[in-house]
Amino acid sequence: MGESFGSWTMGLDAEVMPFVDCANIACGFHAGDPGIMRHTVALASAHGVTVGAHPAYQDLAGFGRRSMACSNEEIRDLLHYQIGALDGICRTQGTRVAYVKPHGALYNDMMADPQKLRAVLGAVAEYDPQLPLMLMATADDSAAQALGDEFGVTLWFEAFADRAYDGAGRLLSRRLPGAVHHDPAQIVEQALRLARGEALIASDGSALRLKAHTLCVHGDNASSVAAVRQIRQALDALPGS
Amino acid sequence: MGESFGSWTMGLDAEVMPFVDCANIACGFHAGDPGIMRHTVALASAHGVTVGAHPAYQDLAGFGRRSMACSNEEIRDLLHYQIGALDGICRTQGTRVAYVKPHGALYNDMMADPQKLRAVLGAVAEYDPQLPLMLMATADDSAAQALGDEFGVTLWFEAFADRAYDGAGRLLSRRLPGAVHHDPAQIVEQALRLARGEALIASDGSALRLKAHTLCVHGDNASSVAAVRQIRQALDALPGS
Amino acid sequence: MGESFGSWTMGLDAEVMPFVDCANIACGFHAGDPGIMRHTVALASAHGVTVGAHPAYQDLAGFGRRSMACSNEEIRDLLHYQIGALDGICRTQGTRVAYVKPHGALYNDMMADPQKLRAVLGAVAEYDPQLPLMLMATADDSAAQALGDEFGVTLWFEAFADRAYDGAGRLLSRRLPGAVHHDPAQIVEQALRLARGEALIASDGSALRLKAHTLCVHGDNASSVAAVRQIRQALDALPGS
Amino acid sequence: MGESFGSWTMGLDAEVMPFVDCANIACGFHAGDPGIMRHTVALASAHGVTVGAHPAYQDLAGFGRRSMACSNEEIRDLLHYQIGALDGICRTQGTRVAYVKPHGALYNDMMADPQKLRAVLGAVAEYDPQLPLMLMATADDSAAQALGDEFGVTLWFEAFADRAYDGAGRLLSRRLPGAVHHDPAQIVEQALRLARGEALIASDGSALRLKAHTLCVHGDNASSVAAVRQIRQALDALPGS
Repeated sequence: MGESFGSWTMGLDAEVMPFVDCANIACGFHAGDPGIMRHTVALASAHGVTVGAHPAYQDLAGFGRRSMACSNEEIRDLLHYQIGALDGICRTQGTRVAYVKPHGALYNDMMADPQKLRAVLGAVAEYDPQLPLMLMATADDSAAQALGDEFGVTLWFEAFADRAYDGAGRLLSRRLPGAVHHDPAQIVEQALRLARGEALIASDGSALRLKAHTLCVHGDNASSVAAVRQIRQALDALPGS
Repeated sequence: MGESFGSWTMGLDAEVMPFVDCANIACGFHAGDPGIMRHTVALASAHGVTVGAHPAYQDLAGFGRRSMACSNEEIRDLLHYQIGALDGICRTQGTRVAYVKPHGALYNDMMADPQKLRAVLGAVAEYDPQLPLMLMATADDSAAQALGDEFGVTLWFEAFADRAYDGAGRLLSRRLPGAVHHDPAQIVEQALRLARGEALIASDGSALRLKAHTLCVHGDNASSVAAVRQIRQALDALPGS
Repeated sequence: MGESFGSWTMGLDAEVMPFVDCANIACGFHAGDPGIMRHTVALASAHGVTVGAHPAYQDLAGFGRRSMACSNEEIRDLLHYQIGALDGICRTQGTRVAYVKPHGALYNDMMADPQKLRAVLGAVAEYDPQLPLMLMATADDSAAQALGDEFGVTLWFEAFADRAYDGAGRLLSRRLPGAVHHDPAQIVEQALRLARGEALIASDGSALRLKAHTLCVHGDNASSVAAVRQIRQALDALPGS
Repeated sequence: MGESFGSWTMGLDAEVMPFVDCANIACGFHAGDPGIMRHTVALASAHGVTVGAHPAYQDLAGFGRRSMACSNEEIRDLLHYQIGALDGICRTQGTRVAYVKPHGALYNDMMADPQKLRAVLGAVAEYDPQLPLMLMATADDSAAQALGDEFGVTLWFEAFADRAYDGAGRLLSRRLPGAVHHDPAQIVEQALRLARGEALIASDGSALRLKAHTLCVHGDNASSVAAVRQIRQALDALPGS
């Protein structure tokens, strides 16, 4: 959320915020500016939503989606800068940054390269070892978990309700047909399976069991807003929720 | 300090740091980047130097020296963002932002326009009312002091050892002859007068008494480094120091 | 036009382009990026629309709407850079920059301060004295015209079909009621009066005669698109058009 | 050249300019700003030096040295924007962009990936097929030459007087000992060998013959300035020069 910038608007934050528990908020490097960050944090705070820092490579023109050959030290420093900036705004709104989820190409690079994941974990641990790091649930999270344990950082694995997975538990590329679910019923169905700990059917037909602590939904179009609302209702109706 | 950027170097931070009590550190909007901020904070921390946030208008190309028609809300938000970013880096280096001194055109605008001073004071108070604001000592500080009291923010008035003043206690414009002292003996003399609470001779010949808590020296050339060293020695030699 | 940026979209360029003669295209400092500039120039070229450079202060976060204290030399240089950049893209699309219209705060500063107008005229003349400068028609354009003549630059005065004027021929501030016309019939009526050289009724009730070569319409919402279409039809129906 | 930015200075352009034939001038994306570009172009023009555009990835903080995952279309567009911007400034100084040499990571990516080289060649051809592209001479330039021919773009191969090569004609990594020559005599010797078409001794002891049209020297420190001066004298003393 908070992915507007200056005079440009993106996302339907006000519509989505009432239905989520956690909001990843852009920190100014790929989107967001100080005024938008304040506005978004205030909105999260008003709805009792947990604020996560959503730091990125410094690439406004590319929306943080283009991988950049940053050194591990550069990644550490840009994380500290952005987490701190958002945290500074949070304290004026009666809240604090409660977790970290890298954005876009930085997120993908962290998932693909253990050295980058080490850089991110080290940066989070150095900033505040109490801050969890949010990353992608895959078929086998043991290597990531071992690194999290090494740095003493809690990992929150997230799964996607509106995306298809391959047999290895990776997101199907957006360039392939069927990569993104558009049918709200299908999205809610996948959300419920994930919430109940049931296996999904991967794109190769195999059963895929993801251990997810959190469910990610993109809040940038009207249909996803509708899905968020329905998922919220479905989850609230689960026994024991 | 910390006014390098990327591959460009400015200032002699390592030479100056041993001789100062407080370092105003750039926060990325007019100078400084996350890596340089970390390096500079680490240097300050190693020398036991108090860290101040030195936030600015967002204008790298103009080094924050060009006034921008920002609204009071925009000023508030850019202050929170930059103070927070520096504070985030400070906490990884075992220190914290301990005061705020706006940079360049933002500093000048704040001194010239009470509405801008209110915006800055409000932003500091909202971030942390324990943080002092550093601003310029003038012949009559009562209006500024009244505003500081209204917002509950401590004011640290600073004077300049290497600049000439006019009769109203304003800095003589750099475009006028004699505006900047280059003779180290004169700089040390002015520093001592300020430290002892003695009057300076203003450019119009009148006696000017400035109530200064802190002494500002620019660390960007070899002669100012020499002056910093001599001022330090002279101040340390004062009775009761 | 071309005021999108990166992943953010603004304006309805494709809908408006068929109905205009001239398009002011953003050059990357307040909006636009190289890809968007190329796309917008190609669209203009496909519709036979004349391309104007729409340069601005370097302030993406503020959309070029915040005045910046740039020197005359800085204004000259940022104009040359932006005009050249757009012209470079134009030549790959079989067209060229055919006039210059500064954007936002730079436009306002140029209209308010003759020294800034001199800086802009000098920059245009130095780049290419054949390029006209577009500026705002007022009740008395003689001072601006004299400056244009001094620099040998053709002036294209523009009037606004959807804005109310005060008695001096200045746009009524957007903060005042009635500053912006929303009724398409009123917008078309004002466009026709301007095209026929008839007087408008200013906000103080006086008759205001503007000598306008061109009519400006903002293409950023559905109602202005509708108005553009109707104005086009009305102008085409004028005798001798 | 022209790799200063805003208040930050880099390079010794005024000292080097009298001794070179061609100057690669930064275009604002990795270094340079409109004022510095104007100043550098004027300096080149005063010395009769041919101006080359030195475009880069948009990464001021990383000085264009970090590879970015730009698409071929993005590379094309950023080249057109930057070449056009520099060309716009050139025409105010009585000169024009006469060739193109990508900078830093963009240069390296173009040398390493034929698809990127195609993107660059296509962009140059689309801008102006008369503009040569400067790229690195290697042991076997036939593949690059075939691509240049396909796009109808003249290639200017450059060699480095102050760098060691491996047996394949690639620059030895700066991380290896002996990668950079510091001894002026050795630099002049290598320059003369290249100018005479004689083989160099590669780092593996083999003879390396490079077909170079131009000799690159970095103008960023005092010793390279001295070398430039000596190389100029040595080349001027060659028979037939």
